[in-house]
Amino acid sequence: MKKTALILGSDSDLPIAEKAIAVLKKLDMPYEAHIMSAHRTPEVTARFASGAEEAGFGAIIAFAGKAAHLAGVIAAHTSLPVIGVPIKSPDLGGMDALLSTVQMPSGIPVATVAIDGGANAAWLAARILAVSEPALSARLADEKRAMEESVMKKDAALNV
Amino acid sequence: MKKTALILGSDSDLPIAEKAIAVLKKLDMPYEAHIMSAHRTPEVTARFASGAEEAGFGAIIAFAGKAAHLAGVIAAHTSLPVIGVPIKSPDLGGMDALLSTVQMPSGIPVATVAIDGGANAAWLAARILAVSEPALSARLADEKRAMEESVMKKDAALNV
Amino acid sequence: MKKTALILGSDSDLPIAEKAIAVLKKLDMPYEAHIMSAHRTPEVTARFASGAEEAGFGAIIAFAGKAAHLAGVIAAHTSLPVIGVPIKSPDLGGMDALLSTVQMPSGIPVATVAIDGGANAAWLAARILAVSEPALSARLADEKRAMEESVMKKDAALNV
Amino acid sequence: MKKTALILGSDSDLPIAEKAIAVLKKLDMPYEAHIMSAHRTPEVTARFASGAEEAGFGAIIAFAGKAAHLAGVIAAHTSLPVIGVPIKSPDLGGMDALLSTVQMPSGIPVATVAIDGGANAAWLAARILAVSEPALSARLADEKRAMEESVMKKDAALNV
Amino acid sequence: MKKTALILGSDSDLPIAEKAIAVLKKLDMPYEAHIMSAHRTPEVTARFASGAEEAGFGAIIAFAGKAAHLAGVIAAHTSLPVIGVPIKSPDLGGMDALLSTVQMPSGIPVATVAIDGGANAAWLAARILAVSEPALSARLADEKRAMEESVMKKDAALNV
Amino acid sequence: MKKTALILGSDSDLPIAEKAIAVLKKLDMPYEAHIMSAHRTPEVTARFASGAEEAGFGAIIAFAGKAAHLAGVIAAHTSLPVIGVPIKSPDLGGMDALLSTVQMPSGIPVATVAIDGGANAAWLAARILAVSEPALSARLADEKRAMEESVMKKDAALNV
Amino acid sequence: MKKTALILGSDSDLPIAEKAIAVLKKLDMPYEAHIMSAHRTPEVTARFASGAEEAGFGAIIAFAGKAAHLAGVIAAHTSLPVIGVPIKSPDLGGMDALLSTVQMPSGIPVATVAIDGGANAAWLAARILAVSEPALSARLADEKRAMEESVMKKDAALNV
Amino acid sequence: MKKTALILGSDSDLPIAEKAIAVLKKLDMPYEAHIMSAHRTPEVTARFASGAEEAGFGAIIAFAGKAAHLAGVIAAHTSLPVIGVPIKSPDLGGMDALLSTVQMPSGIPVATVAIDGGANAAWLAARILAVSEPALSARLADEKRAMEESVMKKDAALNV
Repeated sequence: MKKTALILGSDSDLPIAEKAIAVLKKLDMPYEAHIMSAHRTPEVTARFASGAEEAGFGAIIAFAGKAAHLAGVIAAHTSLPVIGVPIKSPDLGGMDALLSTVQMPSGIPVATVAIDGGANAAWLAARILAVSEPALSARLADEKRAMEESVMKKDAALNV
Repeated sequence: MKKTALILGSDSDLPIAEKAIAVLKKLDMPYEAHIMSAHRTPEVTARFASGAEEAGFGAIIAFAGKAAHLAGVIAAHTSLPVIGVPIKSPDLGGMDALLSTVQMPSGIPVATVAIDGGANAAWLAARILAVSEPALSARLADEKRAMEESVMKKDAALNV
Repeated sequence: MKKTALILGSDSDLPIAEKAIAVLKKLDMPYEAHIMSAHRTPEVTARFASGAEEAGFGAIIAFAGKAAHLAGVIAAHTSLPVIGVPIKSPDLGGMDALLSTVQMPSGIPVATVAIDGGANAAWLAARILAVSEPALSARLADEKRAMEESVMKKDAALNV
Repeated sequence: MKKTALILGSDSDLPIAEKAIAVLKKLDMPYEAHIMSAHRTPEVTARFASGAEEAGFGAIIAFAGKAAHLAGVIAAHTSLPVIGVPIKSPDLGGMDALLSTVQMPSGIPVATVAIDGGANAAWLAARILAVSEPALSARLADEKRAMEESVMKKDAALNV
Repeated sequence: MKKTALILGSDSDLPIAEKAIAVLKKLDMPYEAHIMSAHRTPEVTARFASGAEEAGFGAIIAFAGKAAHLAGVIAAHTSLPVIGVPIKSPDLGGMDALLSTVQMPSGIPVATVAIDGGANAAWLAARILAVSEPALSARLADEKRAMEESVMKKDAALNV
Repeated sequence: MKKTALILGSDSDLPIAEKAIAVLKKLDMPYEAHIMSAHRTPEVTARFASGAEEAGFGAIIAFAGKAAHLAGVIAAHTSLPVIGVPIKSPDLGGMDALLSTVQMPSGIPVATVAIDGGANAAWLAARILAVSEPALSARLADEKRAMEESVMKKDAALNV
Repeated sequence: MKKTALILGSDSDLPIAEKAIAVLKKLDMPYEAHIMSAHRTPEVTARFASGAEEAGFGAIIAFAGKAAHLAGVIAAHTSLPVIGVPIKSPDLGGMDALLSTVQMPSGIPVATVAIDGGANAAWLAARILAVSEPALSARLADEKRAMEESVMKKDAALNV
Repeated sequence: MKKTALILGSDSDLPIAEKAIAVLKKLDMPYEAHIMSAHRTPEVTARFASGAEEAGFGAIIAFAGKAAHLAGVIAAHTSLPVIGVPIKSPDLGGMDALLSTVQMPSGIPVATVAIDGGANAAWLAARILAVSEPALSARLADEKRAMEESVMKKDAALNV
């Protein structure tokens, strides 16, 4: 199975990235995590993105807050699907990162998930790679049933 | 190559969907388009989403405005990657559709693109399917170069 | 008197739902509470909504945060009045849930109350059922007078 | 069947109110329409709201823009269900009217529908009155089926 | 000198009202404070506003949060200048109360100050009453000089 | 009666200022209008504000859009009541001017009215000056009755 | 005098860039304009920014809309002052471009001006270069006086 | 080297100003800090700004929250580049200060940085003064490399 890359714009994004890693581990998906900045290490970032396809990656998840350019800059340097996770900041609640990530110009899409949506970024990477991985697709179907049962158990236990 | 489904929440979404279709045609990607509503034809929508994987689809693009539930409802019924296109409405500029599409709960991701971003939804579907389609991947790389050249030509022609 | 259903999108919505339950109890209104998710248990939700009228419900209150599709999805499967309570989330303050709940397309209305407005959802259910329940209508009028007196007592006690 | 009242904060709200009237007529629901202002005719408004239940009304729809106090002020003077329609204004797109209508304090709920959602206000009034009117409930079920078929016909005719 | 009325929509508004009271006391301005609700005690509120001019008031300050109708409803029942203080709420930061207070229709103005701007409401009442009270006007000029000196002292003490 | 000053930040604010002038003329209130800019003619503005009280003004209305500093800058140089009218701009709908005008720091209040609320600025000036002008107060009461009758006539003529 | 670079993210930004050019011409400031995209020609953009200081530029103005990454990406590749002009888009009024441009992480600042503020970007470039260019500084002082006189003439001509 | 002025609208802005001072010290840039208010000490502020160029300043940083007029008022009285730092407030997250600072009218630009972006204001002042200070420009290039290495070290140490 192709690897998923997790690129953190800053080490402060680690708590949200760890939610993604927990999902990838549960699904037995290989991954690699790096800290790279669109603004502080632009060349490292460009080099990584340009070579990601050849290095065996199938999807890239980028985590960034405020003027969150990271996912867009990575998408400019690769044809792989790039998933953007807008990180909540203390002032505008993540609205800045959401708009900076999702409002990409035509031709260079970023698949944006919810503010602080680290887990969903991994679930989306799994859906993407599962298109050509029947085993992963089966695992996803299992997980959907498990989620369903978990909600039903909570409903059964509700006592108000 | 697997097919891409385009699901329009309303026939008023057609002008934005046509931007997606233009990209899919340019990339020779097979597609099917339908009008289905999360609220007016909920069962038709659920049935389509549940059977989409088996019917040979590899990605689903959903177009919806206002309280745009369509992409999320489809994602609830399939493990395929679902791309959401928030449609601009005359009052809140599409902020309502953007938040309704992107802020999905953990486990059921929607890959959200820009407001009225029909073209980018198709570019994203292409990136997703290209993970296991080397020919499509090559076509995407060609298109990136073409975009690059087009900007450079416009730059060369700029006269101010 | 017909029953009121309270449907929680997640068990984290319980503190707000309990505000509704407190009002329903004060008004001696029969109710039933369930945890169901528009995205994780879509079929359970659809089945419940489709059968709610026949099961003796007269109003349904749905609690959901972020991309709050629950009230809309329920309204798509029933002709009963559906009341939506947008739940505050830590990033956008509940604006996402508010717009996802209120901006419904024509034909499938959701009666939306304030962000975290659990109590008002129950007061609204009471007003709705009181249209054909003179005893409940009388109790509502009593409660209005009690609220009025409570404010007047606070005014009398104000000492600044 | 009980009557539905339509209260317009200003005659400029008429185009949106007419969308409600069209639905009420289609469903054969009796109604009465008035222009009353929470700010310019506060006593007329209070008197109307206070007497509405006795005058045979079962639901009240209020249309108002900007600092849209009308629905809330009416709800303060009656125990009937009050539906608020926030009207779009040219500056803030109706966000002002939406928040002024929906964010009501505990005890005095307003059932808020979408910005400029005149039609849905009438559909909601119908759902409310149908709780005790089996014939209206049946008509609503018919209309749902008709909406469903209309979407399916548009889907069948789609040719892109 | 005419009295200033402070009307609190709820006793939870007291901390902000106390900022106004501190200013009124510093300026030796007579005042009266009450808790009245546009929604829970609409008749008490209307009666108070209608009689305020005759009762010797020269300005009315209204404090309210969320769907803050209080200032507007008071302004509908008097020709006195009405000052509105939007109160911050935990979800939307007071944007709801600000828009509900300031976006009044033509003919019924509310003089709106900042979110939680209790002190400025009192300063504004003082400016209004000072138009015909030379002594108060002189005191205001003194206070401006004092504020100026206070800033200059802080500047002189700044050591960074 | 004291004069009302109308200060326009730019000649493009004239259409909104004319709404204020129409009200002042209807109420026989003396006024003077000027174009002055907080940023382009800061000294002229400061000089005017500093001398306004002595020049016989009783209230100042400032019209400004975008980063609307005009009302605040005028309030910094006078103890007269200053009314701010935020002007709608083509990008953010006037939200920028509203926040720049209303969110004043403690001690220097601006009485803010609605976006493009030129008429209400004049009505507010009238309420302020009427505190010490019984004749104006009587005219305001007459106008309120006229507004009330006008709404009632429109209601009587409504035919839908 | 050092040159000012104008970098347009797209040729659709030309009308706003032309406002900047008009100011630069009026001030006799040398400039060069290019179309370059952070996403479509990332390498051309990086190369230009990296070499701009050596190529004789003293300031760079970047024009971009939606997820406006251009100014930030340029600032990542140079130590020159970079001015960002957020371009208004039809859906969110330019709020997206404003936040994407201004909310830059520590160490890589972008000097942001108003939405569609092409002229002010040039005025800011002039202020920056004038720090070491006394002749330009004198021209700026002249222009300030001219602006002041222009406002005063408009005031003198005002007749309302 | 010319001095940088730091003007704080209030002593509560000191924590953010200290972030700027830390950067200026690291870069060995001379500075002077003052507390001045656009509204409470308008004349002191105007006098300082008018004389700043002659007093040896090359850039001015203004810190202000809420209706943040300080940077704009300073820019009105000088031709030096003025940098505005919008300060976060507890209600609207700094959106008010951001819009009040950035949306300046044509001719009087303010170089706006991120909400609470004290550090970036200093980095921007450094970029501006470095245009004519080769030694400072070299120090900036060194700092960029140091930032780059710091990110790369964090990446090397990442272990997830």
